[in-house]
Amino acid sequence: MKKSLIALAVLAAAGAASAQSSVTLYGRLDAGLVNVKDEINGDGVTRNKLESNVLNNSLWGMKGSEDLGGGLKANFVLEQGMSVDTGAPANAERAFHRQATVGLSGSFGSVDLGRNYPAYDTIRTLVNNTADTNMAVTNEVFANGGDYTNRTNNSIRFNSADYSGFSGAVSYGFGENKDVTPGAKSTDQVSLNVKYANGPVLAAYAHLSDKQADGSSKKYNLIGGAYDFGVVRLNAGYNTTKRTGSDDKEYQVGVSAPFGATTVYFGYANSKTDPDVGATVKRSGFDLAATYALSKRTTAYAGYKTYEVKDANKEFTAVGAGIRHVF
Amino acid sequence: MKKSLIALAVLAAAGAASAQSSVTLYGRLDAGLVNVKDEINGDGVTRNKLESNVLNNSLWGMKGSEDLGGGLKANFVLEQGMSVDTGAPANAERAFHRQATVGLSGSFGSVDLGRNYPAYDTIRTLVNNTADTNMAVTNEVFANGGDYTNRTNNSIRFNSADYSGFSGAVSYGFGENKDVTPGAKSTDQVSLNVKYANGPVLAAYAHLSDKQADGSSKKYNLIGGAYDFGVVRLNAGYNTTKRTGSDDKEYQVGVSAPFGATTVYFGYANSKTDPDVGATVKRSGFDLAATYALSKRTTAYAGYKTYEVKDANKEFTAVGAGIRHVF
Amino acid sequence: MKKSLIALAVLAAAGAASAQSSVTLYGRLDAGLVNVKDEINGDGVTRNKLESNVLNNSLWGMKGSEDLGGGLKANFVLEQGMSVDTGAPANAERAFHRQATVGLSGSFGSVDLGRNYPAYDTIRTLVNNTADTNMAVTNEVFANGGDYTNRTNNSIRFNSADYSGFSGAVSYGFGENKDVTPGAKSTDQVSLNVKYANGPVLAAYAHLSDKQADGSSKKYNLIGGAYDFGVVRLNAGYNTTKRTGSDDKEYQVGVSAPFGATTVYFGYANSKTDPDVGATVKRSGFDLAATYALSKRTTAYAGYKTYEVKDANKEFTAVGAGIRHVF
Repeated sequence: MKKSLIALAVLAAAGAASAQSSVTLYGRLDAGLVNVKDEINGDGVTRNKLESNVLNNSLWGMKGSEDLGGGLKANFVLEQGMSVDTGAPANAERAFHRQATVGLSGSFGSVDLGRNYPAYDTIRTLVNNTADTNMAVTNEVFANGGDYTNRTNNSIRFNSADYSGFSGAVSYGFGENKDVTPGAKSTDQVSLNVKYANGPVLAAYAHLSDKQADGSSKKYNLIGGAYDFGVVRLNAGYNTTKRTGSDDKEYQVGVSAPFGATTVYFGYANSKTDPDVGATVKRSGFDLAATYALSKRTTAYAGYKTYEVKDANKEFTAVGAGIRHVF
Repeated sequence: MKKSLIALAVLAAAGAASAQSSVTLYGRLDAGLVNVKDEINGDGVTRNKLESNVLNNSLWGMKGSEDLGGGLKANFVLEQGMSVDTGAPANAERAFHRQATVGLSGSFGSVDLGRNYPAYDTIRTLVNNTADTNMAVTNEVFANGGDYTNRTNNSIRFNSADYSGFSGAVSYGFGENKDVTPGAKSTDQVSLNVKYANGPVLAAYAHLSDKQADGSSKKYNLIGGAYDFGVVRLNAGYNTTKRTGSDDKEYQVGVSAPFGATTVYFGYANSKTDPDVGATVKRSGFDLAATYALSKRTTAYAGYKTYEVKDANKEFTAVGAGIRHVF
Repeated sequence: MKKSLIALAVLAAAGAASAQSSVTLYGRLDAGLVNVKDEINGDGVTRNKLESNVLNNSLWGMKGSEDLGGGLKANFVLEQGMSVDTGAPANAERAFHRQATVGLSGSFGSVDLGRNYPAYDTIRTLVNNTADTNMAVTNEVFANGGDYTNRTNNSIRFNSADYSGFSGAVSYGFGENKDVTPGAKSTDQVSLNVKYANGPVLAAYAHLSDKQADGSSKKYNLIGGAYDFGVVRLNAGYNTTKRTGSDDKEYQVGVSAPFGATTVYFGYANSKTDPDVGATVKRSGFDLAATYALSKRTTAYAGYKTYEVKDANKEFTAVGAGIRHVF
């Protein structure tokens, strides 16, 4: 006999106000059919695939919040990423690759210890086009798509409270491996963000500085924002990267418009990398996507994206459709 | 303080008809003591062991179903196998080795994307003797015991609705590795089944075709059925395999009889493999098992199985007893 | 929409006495900041770190108990360890490294099959100082800190019922690898304990015998106890180890005292290892710790520990503070 977890709603229905939930089991599963041709990082052969994580990365997790009294709460999250198409974990080394934190929150904001998102990442996802989905071509076009450590081991993160729309966050990752194994990748990392979010307006700045054990470093600065006109929402972000060996200047813009249960998205991204040695690399691309809400938790989607590396005369194109279910 | 998941029954009891369950946490744990002597694949030394998965493979998982209205549902399952005797996962590469799917169902049937059972496997387990447990000697005797891919990555599966007892299923696994890494094992796979199940009668046919990246292939055809007389249930299956290099012809039959909380099983399996080069290999064996239901969820069991490879004059025997708990 | 697991308390509140819980999802998360200088096993450089498992090892698990009637119950537990600072599992080879068992309990006691704690370990943790936390310097000082197999694959464990305070346990781990892979580590293990626990008094004896595949062996004998005066609790343990190549004699003592929500701990440990060849190795150290209960489930803590290897003139010191949350 399988027993089922029950919505908090039951609490109210049962009038059991004193009972506390201590853990929430949650997840997001995404799978679809795609047609991909990748001349840039692949072999240029067109392929049909059943893929996971077409719209969003799949995951499952446990989280909870305990009221300690006096406005103080204890919070935790354990979150694993995986692919629905194979059942494989997002990272074979980590049971909870996406997030693993424990901390406290109160009127001051929150402090979380563990494997946190850096403060920079929060803004990057917030101002990304195409609702920060994998449909957005930003990750492919931006040189820092897979460049910065977007989840930080051995880190502490502070999120401020919201002051009339203003808020901020600071995260620090201890570079614990630095001295122990010279040459190994250090996670020594500082990141911060400031944000103004009020009604239709969003404006934000974020910084991340990654120090590597080999002496190299990466520094990212991002400004971005969005305005929601109701009929359409506009967003944009401009990022500069100064890394040992090369610098990037890159931007992306997006438009989305809701039509009942359907939302339509358009995104454009442009990147220029200037290496200390060699020629400038320019990339640009766009994406088109539509989502249809079958319910609050279940979404059908379809999308197209393409980008090119200029001068190299090489192109990537992908078209796909699928389903995303949240529990 | 440990908090507990609660049966759906609470919903009714609480009169909270509007609340929905969104995830069910479930599992099956099996462990027992066995005495094994394996001259065929082992060293022939008799050993006592504490083993997991003696009656059934152990597992845990999450699954759920959301009503989307109009008869449509969104469904998912994430299922991991493991051994209770060591805590080890069934497969170290996959977080959810047994199943990982997301899909939709309705009056038409269901469509699931992800890591699915092939349609062939469903019939193979349905007509297997000894209630398709690990007590059944079929897996050891049949050449295709570990031969066919019984869970298919990158696959889509359609299950039809039931039409007066008739139903069918089709599954397709995209051979995504085929062109990318020549020589690597492809999972390109087509499978289908048709079934008639009505009252005491079960009759079924299933096909599976596996194409390998190295050009080799495997084709399985299975017919099987069962009849439940009440006092005894009979079942049988006949399978042919055409694989590059050899062909198999194999069958198995089984009888089971309930006596109150106890059920007694007998199974026999016979296999003949004709290689293109070399001598025919014949295997046969039988098993005897009994289960005792301590409750609907908890079962004590004992069993014996043996099989031999003819002409090789080699034998495998195992006797064991244990407990299986389902949650 | 995230749905939540609900306390058993809801059952009573809802008057749904007939509904049964079948699985409990639980966990413990620990993270803190530490300053460590390790001249003994490390490089002697002082480091600041964000660490997990400072007070207790982090874990999550599933467990359940089913009433079979007549006083009999079916029980299971699946428990995984992990580090909150990185999300990494305690052991990469095992999905449920800490415990994986299924069994029965009744008026006779309980029998569990799977990956069990040996009976010896239960007493070792029970009489350890500093509430058997990682703050206790015992694990560093005792030669058998990481020496004995403290979770046993392929094992069966019997726990007796409590007879006026007297109880006992026996565990046996089948050395299944012994003959199969000569030279491989066998888990062939016998362990037992007897215990008297009544009101403020605890007295216990435990034995563990580990046979290795290479012919070597380890035998541990431990006596220990505790007395709770209310204002302070005293505990002590004395262990001897006879292993192939060397013998240990070691003891540890501890004091703890509660002050409202705060509890203060002091522990001391001393060890002497006599190798068959070479000089005696002496280690000793102490720890000081304090915990503050933010709630029953959430604890803030701080602690200091240090130990030295005599004659080698080398020292380990660590100071840290953090938070532990149980769900």
